[in-house]
Amino acid sequence: MCALVPVSCGAAPKNMGEILASSALSDWRTPDPGNTLYLELGTGRVVIELAPQFAPLHIANIRKLVRAGYFDGLAVIRLQDNYVAQWGDAEGTRALPAGVGDVAAEFDAGISPSMHFTPLPDKDGYAPQVGFTDGFPSARNEQLHLTWLAHCYGMVGVGRDENPKSSGAELYAVIGHAPRHLDRNVALVGRIVKGVELLSSLPRGKGELGFYNKVESPLPIRTVRIAADVPIAERSNLEILRTDTPLFTALVESRRNRPEPWFKVQAGNIELCNVPLPVREP
Amino acid sequence: MCALVPVSCGAAPKNMGEILASSALSDWRTPDPGNTLYLELGTGRVVIELAPQFAPLHIANIRKLVRAGYFDGLAVIRLQDNYVAQWGDAEGTRALPAGVGDVAAEFDAGISPSMHFTPLPDKDGYAPQVGFTDGFPSARNEQLHLTWLAHCYGMVGVGRDENPKSSGAELYAVIGHAPRHLDRNVALVGRIVKGVELLSSLPRGKGELGFYNKVESPLPIRTVRIAADVPIAERSNLEILRTDTPLFTALVESRRNRPEPWFKVQAGNIELCNVPLPVREP
Repeated sequence: MCALVPVSCGAAPKNMGEILASSALSDWRTPDPGNTLYLELGTGRVVIELAPQFAPLHIANIRKLVRAGYFDGLAVIRLQDNYVAQWGDAEGTRALPAGVGDVAAEFDAGISPSMHFTPLPDKDGYAPQVGFTDGFPSARNEQLHLTWLAHCYGMVGVGRDENPKSSGAELYAVIGHAPRHLDRNVALVGRIVKGVELLSSLPRGKGELGFYNKVESPLPIRTVRIAADVPIAERSNLEILRTDTPLFTALVESRRNRPEPWFKVQAGNIELCNVPLPVREP
Repeated sequence: MCALVPVSCGAAPKNMGEILASSALSDWRTPDPGNTLYLELGTGRVVIELAPQFAPLHIANIRKLVRAGYFDGLAVIRLQDNYVAQWGDAEGTRALPAGVGDVAAEFDAGISPSMHFTPLPDKDGYAPQVGFTDGFPSARNEQLHLTWLAHCYGMVGVGRDENPKSSGAELYAVIGHAPRHLDRNVALVGRIVKGVELLSSLPRGKGELGFYNKVESPLPIRTVRIAADVPIAERSNLEILRTDTPLFTALVESRRNRPEPWFKVQAGNIELCNVPLPVREP
């Protein structure tokens, strides 16, 4: 019996709610306002945490685009069911601000000692190792000394054409089953930490690949801002669970082998994109 | 070079569109109208193919519920982002028709020689073997002589409380990243083959677990019918790609190693719930 729930062996195993209720302040982190985007829609705010350790060139571009007001007044232009929401310039006529152009592909990054990586105990077929780097779902190939972000639900990436270079002026968010075949094929730049449902519940586009066609009404973007540029009183006050703590390891285990009596068969396994990354508003 | 695209080695590898364009009539099958449900919403029709080889008791119940008009006038009562859409009787006051009650759990089934199973070449951590049985994503444990349906996007299951028995009067569809930890914990009864976006794009419920609360307006269900009971002229005329053919094997390979020039790194792998199951209207 005990082997099924190793973390809590000898005591009643805790479920996720109980684990979070037992967390200390130090189990949470506050995202850096300089690395946080607010995508302001008429329906509310989508909060994106950026990951410059993985895509510094694209994120430098995105900062310039945001501060030049490039995204303001553009729209969500694509909603493909079980795949992505994409926003940018449908007409392709809005000029990029000075100093912003295509930059080199950032499909993966070197493994840096400053990255805090927590491996998952379970494997998948897409990478030699998967886990969480500084709070982001990610994968590693230590032989190649490479790491990359993984296309889990809510991850934000940079649209591109066949050219591996891209600017960051067109962004998408994953709103379906993780399209992990895109890993290492696009620059992922961050993750939606709040408000993904404002995108995932939009009407699906009727055009090819889920692009909205001309008679549909794409949802306009009011503004995109960097949290650090927003008055403190208007910022979203969020805390994100750290992924490099014993508490997080216990949480992963409580999802590998669910202790709730509802579950009759425990999976003994968890896939990277099924691990919850809790966010709270203190 | 050739090793990357084994199926098409020596010739230009085909992408999914090209493979489907080369399909023969015999690569497709017409779902049995007796095993097809129409969930009629104000916004359109959701078509569900039932899998009685996996859950005969629940599906017998569902047939009785449908023919008694049990679902007509009920509503979608739950929409939890990245998880499930659920429909049934929010009030719990509608009586079940005569002859319908809780039946034994159907979390898995014996492996029968009449099941056509096509294994995937890739493994996952949830089961010794995964693949497709008669067109449905499924898993197998040959040592235990057991097989079960897998919780991929669009799969339809039977809601239950802590009791492992259930009736089939409350149903849900997966509308997010595959919750594979539910495998072998509920009776899955089929798959949405058309119209899943009518559910996945609904507003998320604001109540606990995504249930709609009293001030929200759940989407009403006009009727649920068995296709065989609907006049032929009103039926959805669908063909579903067979999963037990060389063409399907080639399709899987074209998704394991994507030949489109857009892809710079091939995954060499595909996860069960990322395999497309094409449906067409001839």
